[in-house]
Amino acid sequence: MEPGDILSEDTKSVIEQMDIFFNSRSIAVVGASRMTGKVGHIIFRNLADNRRRGIYEGEIYPINPNEESILGYRCYPNLKKIGEEVELIVIAVPARIVPSIMEDAEEKGVKAAVIISSGFSEIGENELEERVKAIAVRAGIRVLGPNCLGVYDSYTGVDMLFLPETKTLSNRNVVIATPRPTPGNIAIVTQSGAFGAAAVDHLAGQEMGLSKLISFGNKVDVAEAEVLLYLLHDDKTKVILLYIEGITEGREFVEVARLVTRHKPVIALKAGRTEAGARAALSHTGAIAGSDRIFDGLFKQVGILRARNMEGFFDMAEALALQPPATGRNIAIVTDAGGPGIMAADECEALGLNVRRFSDETLRRFEALREEGKIPSFATYQNPVDLTGVVTSEMYELSTRILLEDRDVHGIIVLGLHHTPHLTEDFTDRIAKLSSVYRKPIVGCDIGETEMAMYIRSRFNKLGIPAYSSPEDAAYAMVALVRYGLYLSKRGYM
Amino acid sequence: MEPGDILSEDTKSVIEQMDIFFNSRSIAVVGASRMTGKVGHIIFRNLADNRRRGIYEGEIYPINPNEESILGYRCYPNLKKIGEEVELIVIAVPARIVPSIMEDAEEKGVKAAVIISSGFSEIGENELEERVKAIAVRAGIRVLGPNCLGVYDSYTGVDMLFLPETKTLSNRNVVIATPRPTPGNIAIVTQSGAFGAAAVDHLAGQEMGLSKLISFGNKVDVAEAEVLLYLLHDDKTKVILLYIEGITEGREFVEVARLVTRHKPVIALKAGRTEAGARAALSHTGAIAGSDRIFDGLFKQVGILRARNMEGFFDMAEALALQPPATGRNIAIVTDAGGPGIMAADECEALGLNVRRFSDETLRRFEALREEGKIPSFATYQNPVDLTGVVTSEMYELSTRILLEDRDVHGIIVLGLHHTPHLTEDFTDRIAKLSSVYRKPIVGCDIGETEMAMYIRSRFNKLGIPAYSSPEDAAYAMVALVRYGLYLSKRGYM
Repeated sequence: MEPGDILSEDTKSVIEQMDIFFNSRSIAVVGASRMTGKVGHIIFRNLADNRRRGIYEGEIYPINPNEESILGYRCYPNLKKIGEEVELIVIAVPARIVPSIMEDAEEKGVKAAVIISSGFSEIGENELEERVKAIAVRAGIRVLGPNCLGVYDSYTGVDMLFLPETKTLSNRNVVIATPRPTPGNIAIVTQSGAFGAAAVDHLAGQEMGLSKLISFGNKVDVAEAEVLLYLLHDDKTKVILLYIEGITEGREFVEVARLVTRHKPVIALKAGRTEAGARAALSHTGAIAGSDRIFDGLFKQVGILRARNMEGFFDMAEALALQPPATGRNIAIVTDAGGPGIMAADECEALGLNVRRFSDETLRRFEALREEGKIPSFATYQNPVDLTGVVTSEMYELSTRILLEDRDVHGIIVLGLHHTPHLTEDFTDRIAKLSSVYRKPIVGCDIGETEMAMYIRSRFNKLGIPAYSSPEDAAYAMVALVRYGLYLSKRGYM
Repeated sequence: MEPGDILSEDTKSVIEQMDIFFNSRSIAVVGASRMTGKVGHIIFRNLADNRRRGIYEGEIYPINPNEESILGYRCYPNLKKIGEEVELIVIAVPARIVPSIMEDAEEKGVKAAVIISSGFSEIGENELEERVKAIAVRAGIRVLGPNCLGVYDSYTGVDMLFLPETKTLSNRNVVIATPRPTPGNIAIVTQSGAFGAAAVDHLAGQEMGLSKLISFGNKVDVAEAEVLLYLLHDDKTKVILLYIEGITEGREFVEVARLVTRHKPVIALKAGRTEAGARAALSHTGAIAGSDRIFDGLFKQVGILRARNMEGFFDMAEALALQPPATGRNIAIVTDAGGPGIMAADECEALGLNVRRFSDETLRRFEALREEGKIPSFATYQNPVDLTGVVTSEMYELSTRILLEDRDVHGIIVLGLHHTPHLTEDFTDRIAKLSSVYRKPIVGCDIGETEMAMYIRSRFNKLGIPAYSSPEDAAYAMVALVRYGLYLSKRGYM
């Protein structure tokens, strides 16, 4: 079944409601401001900029009783004064006046609200939060937040990121502080706004594209399950990253997660896995972390891949965004550097993958290459295949082809350390070309933090081969492809 | 006891012998060449360049029977024709003629030889290797290699790195391929030459300075123990990184390692920890990896810190190069981002550190700051201290000072996510200034891969605070400081 085939009325309704957050025809920014640095200024400006560029195609309205106009847009004293329909509002005013804004929104017939404002249950103002919630429920307004970073959609131009895009250092140099990633196919769903901003910064720097970012904050209404369901049906999203500290709606989450992971990989970074972490989570978002083992079991049961840490979270995403899942655990390693080959083999085995001696047929094919002088006489190929320091691009191509054609090999790690004298950058192109022919995952690695290493990794990535800066990171990325593949095949989905 | 106080005659003799590799008055390059790209050209050129710059201060002699001169230096047909003393030779000729070179060296009275050439036991030519070894023993010539990358000393200008410093891409752009790190206080001792080159590339890009690199290759003579002993007495080296696949001289190694770790931290990356890895190590350097648990026990016993992977290896080095060891396991975390604070707490506890509620006295001091309005009313400080998105540099300074003054806190992780609107880069300076007053380790973290994140991390590093790109990496760096501190205090060395 493809996710879009037959949708229940309930699902259709959820998708329509969630769609307002990303794709609304009209947005009012309550608390819009002329003053630089103010949240209500930055958000309104993001939208105005994107509208001028033709990225955001809807209407936008600034709401502020003290201004006539903001950035050339007529300013309204309140929502009710707008003559046209308003689908979505973004609220960036002090917490205590949020209830009255919600009442205006009810009267105006607004469909959804993003409450950026903080000062609710996260600081003990539970009663205020309950009042907001009650109005929303009564009015049928779907609410994201409060105390959140809102939404960023790289395709529709809805951009509520209110953190400064640039900062000015004391030497008056301007530097990028909160960048915007390019459009891509990774969605981020996060309970922590700060982590959302950090994630965006990481993705942008790593040249990984983003489809959408959604930050929940206090979750008075919209939470994980509905967003996951929406992302399942979002054509722009291929991989979903989920940062959570706890889950409020267990049963619904399980049901939706199981459905989503059948079609798209979901990777979770669950914080609060130790006693100290759980205590911190409790004081951060009030999440009751529960036993970490319960989450482990839950994730496994519904096919969510759990990342071991922040770096693994992004590394897994990159692998799943670019490569197909593996159909088994047998991994081949090809390298020009013995030591790093061992490091990759160690990490694979430590994480439950197999790095086995190849089949006789494959060994014969390598032996033939050696006899023809196409790989060095002192190359070894028991797995890892070590082409040694005299490696050329052609040797990588010939070896990778043999491994792609070996049915007992389910995934390939290509360690291409560029330091060897004869290796030219076209080995990445050769491997990518092979990769496009065979449906078997390949991940790459080059070690180093100077020009050529970064160039090789970037080139690999652009060609669709996720590439990492250490052998262990490459192995961990392969683990994601294997785990997802095994989940799908165990359930008969692949 | 300081390492230099009283030296036995044996130790003095080892130090003198090893010193020839790094600090010789005269070097002959056997197999020096005029031809670009040849190993014998690159090594001779490195030395000639460094001599011209005044970095290498000794004499250099090219040896090649087919040339009159190389790079303006008179070329000799063989070692014996050189009228002056030659302390060290670098051999870059085909394996089969290495024995005759060694015989010349014996006649000439050379003290030490680095055999770069490969084609010995690593490809089954054991008999050839034995012949070389026999000559060396007979002549009393200390030998590094064969099949190695030799030596790089960033202070004396001895540079045998023969991998191309730059490469030219197909678009004719020239890029740095094997960079040279700046002088620093980290030494790398490696069994794998390829990993040595990769390590140099990593360090250079991370702006981590290097004192010396030593690559062993097949280890016919010089191995870990003597080099460690030498580095113990090397003023330029503060931290020693050791990449190994196996150890050949167990008892000597244990004895020396125990002595060295008392004065300088040694971090090991031991590859071949799984069955597949051990098999690969066997075919790579012939290392019999043995049970991994034996190595674990051995390292603990002698105070060597074992890194879990390549990234951890360098992260630990950076921490130990910049910060003092911790005197206990209690870690305080201060953050402006709740989620990443939890992630750091999780990783600390998972790795055996404590992230405990602070003492009543410290809580009172934070409470007082809150009452004075110097930190936000909604800040939390149960550990982590969460200063929230309204954080300023001053809040970081005030909070860090309280934690430095708490005797029950042994180390501090400062997560300074720059995305928050009011945080300016001078928070790094304020923390570094505090750090210089108190003898308690601090590590930093900022998340992101674009301009400001990289600037903050780099600024922290330059100010002596090791800074990492994920909360878990920062926690892992703190683990190194704690483990080393606990080893030293358990043995009464601190």
